[in-house]
Amino acid sequence: MKNYVLTPGPVPVPEFVMLEMAKPIIHHRTEEFEEIFHNATEGLKKVFMTKEEVLILASSGTGAMDASICNTLSKGDKALVVNGGKFGERWLKICSAYGVETEELKVEWGKAVSSDEIKNTLDNNPDIKAVLVQASETSTGVEHPIESIAKITRNRDDVLLIVDGITAVGAFPVEFDKWGIDILIGGSQKAFMMPPGLSFIVLSQKAWAFAEKSDLPKFYLDLKQAHKNSLKRTSPWTPAVTLVIGLNAVLKHFDEIGLDALYKRHSIMSEATTTGFEAIGLTNFAKGCTSTALSVIKVPEEIDAGKIVKGLKNQYGIIVAGGQDQAKGKIFRVTHMGYVDKADIIAVIAGVESILSDLQYNFTKGIGVSTANTILNQL
Amino acid sequence: MKNYVLTPGPVPVPEFVMLEMAKPIIHHRTEEFEEIFHNATEGLKKVFMTKEEVLILASSGTGAMDASICNTLSKGDKALVVNGGKFGERWLKICSAYGVETEELKVEWGKAVSSDEIKNTLDNNPDIKAVLVQASETSTGVEHPIESIAKITRNRDDVLLIVDGITAVGAFPVEFDKWGIDILIGGSQKAFMMPPGLSFIVLSQKAWAFAEKSDLPKFYLDLKQAHKNSLKRTSPWTPAVTLVIGLNAVLKHFDEIGLDALYKRHSIMSEATTTGFEAIGLTNFAKGCTSTALSVIKVPEEIDAGKIVKGLKNQYGIIVAGGQDQAKGKIFRVTHMGYVDKADIIAVIAGVESILSDLQYNFTKGIGVSTANTILNQL
Repeated sequence: MKNYVLTPGPVPVPEFVMLEMAKPIIHHRTEEFEEIFHNATEGLKKVFMTKEEVLILASSGTGAMDASICNTLSKGDKALVVNGGKFGERWLKICSAYGVETEELKVEWGKAVSSDEIKNTLDNNPDIKAVLVQASETSTGVEHPIESIAKITRNRDDVLLIVDGITAVGAFPVEFDKWGIDILIGGSQKAFMMPPGLSFIVLSQKAWAFAEKSDLPKFYLDLKQAHKNSLKRTSPWTPAVTLVIGLNAVLKHFDEIGLDALYKRHSIMSEATTTGFEAIGLTNFAKGCTSTALSVIKVPEEIDAGKIVKGLKNQYGIIVAGGQDQAKGKIFRVTHMGYVDKADIIAVIAGVESILSDLQYNFTKGIGVSTANTILNQL
Repeated sequence: MKNYVLTPGPVPVPEFVMLEMAKPIIHHRTEEFEEIFHNATEGLKKVFMTKEEVLILASSGTGAMDASICNTLSKGDKALVVNGGKFGERWLKICSAYGVETEELKVEWGKAVSSDEIKNTLDNNPDIKAVLVQASETSTGVEHPIESIAKITRNRDDVLLIVDGITAVGAFPVEFDKWGIDILIGGSQKAFMMPPGLSFIVLSQKAWAFAEKSDLPKFYLDLKQAHKNSLKRTSPWTPAVTLVIGLNAVLKHFDEIGLDALYKRHSIMSEATTTGFEAIGLTNFAKGCTSTALSVIKVPEEIDAGKIVKGLKNQYGIIVAGGQDQAKGKIFRVTHMGYVDKADIIAVIAGVESILSDLQYNFTKGIGVSTANTILNQL
């Protein structure tokens, strides 16, 4: 059966990228590769909307999350963690590993954090050194209000805003320089439509000043080393050569289609998917704060979302992600990132319609597909 | 011009591996990928010659070197570092980053450490907790006597033997279980003939006991997490999916050709290359302690090795590595790892003959190629 990977990472990789990476290997200490590395860095700056150097690490996104903490904070520092899903939880675990104290702001799964709450928490805890948050929480499909949060942090010299943008950067605009974010993180296997294995991280001048004072030990993830070498068009350790070559091809493609078109694409697919499923009677789990990177769809109480995930796989070869932890069996998640197009979205809605029909769920057959299709035609 | 990458990492990757990795991406939380991950782990156990779980990290080899320290030692611990080249130096830097004290055993570049010296240093410093050494030092082409060193450390419950086998494992036998090594590290872009981006690490039961006491912070490189997840056929963070798929293809290939044949291949190419260059009057820089993973060739004093590296590239498209630091201009380095065959070795010797001839160096033309060729015919 033909497979359609529609999970929110890894996402489908375009053939031209896979084939670019399949070319004979080149050595990394050569002008040829340094040119590619430099072009990739310059391309990343556009997507991260910054003049600062965007660093390329040979690691999963979690490696860059780790690096954002161990390079800027010190043991005993306190951080405000926005925890509204699996990746919010990960911030807590990273802090705990490094002896960084946390003030946890629990957010109901499917809701966005309120920037007022962040302001209050900062006002009540003047010892907080950093706010840790996701731009897009992959486990719930929520977009947190980064621009509003940055308005609070950017005038405080003693507080960093550290944003996990792994499922955000490239999917919708996260304006690093303009908004005044201090650290922003991305990952290759998301909107960059690459295989996993690379992460990206950029630091503001304020974050670099924090880095000067940080006493947490690091070596492989030492961002000062990465920065120094990046300016010389290389990395301190052997880079993941083929992945950097693929990234460069993707960023050239982004240049050709334009970032606005890319963001619009995610936006239309998000609207089509959520509206299509709502027409059937399912719910947008992140209603009112929807990340356009993915659609997280809540099924009616009487239905096990796991059956939809399994049915899509077995009957259609469509791979979507289920819910995790408290959302297990309640939701399923569909990517709009990567090499995904109209027909993929139509297929996933048609598949779900068919499975719901088999489960005796009552709805107007075809309504999801036709609703989505109308919106997708804007693409 | 056609390129021939003959550097000691990255090394040429076979087409079947590149094409396997170019297939449509699959999701990592699926039975299909878990099976591949598990098969790769089982394949690695054979190459690492161990019954212990070999962990696959999404990082350069340096990530695994970092992990070997921050997972087993504690701040203020003392480690004996064998420093006979660039990668020996790296051990010192990692220890310094983590506040681990070091007793440095300096070894002349091109020479192997004496295991007697290690024994004496351990006897004189009963507070040493670990011996850090390269099985094969890529900057000099030296093989350090790991089996002899293990004989000293394996009966000391309070000392770990931590071996960087990045340019060794897969090139020649490093018998983890039998010799009694405590940590052994490998990298994808060496004898595993893959692109860079994966590292491998295995710990003995003694090393895991050290890990229980280690107080150094770690998150992304936390090996306990990696171990727990590896037993469940996965990794704690998103794995580098395509690279793991390529690795699995390589390990299947190793199974087909047999590890003994693989080691013999490196050994014959090493002998052919060093003997071929010696016939011209050049020197094996690691004479008497030659790692068969690569040949490091010293040029006569009056010749700049940089000219050979440049000439090979410009006139033949052959990419070899030059010397670093104190060895700059004095040596060049040729891999025997990866997708390299007889004709590559002949070409590099013929190229050097031609360049030396242009430099008015006096030797019997053709003697290098014919000497090497005779040995290569054993392949």
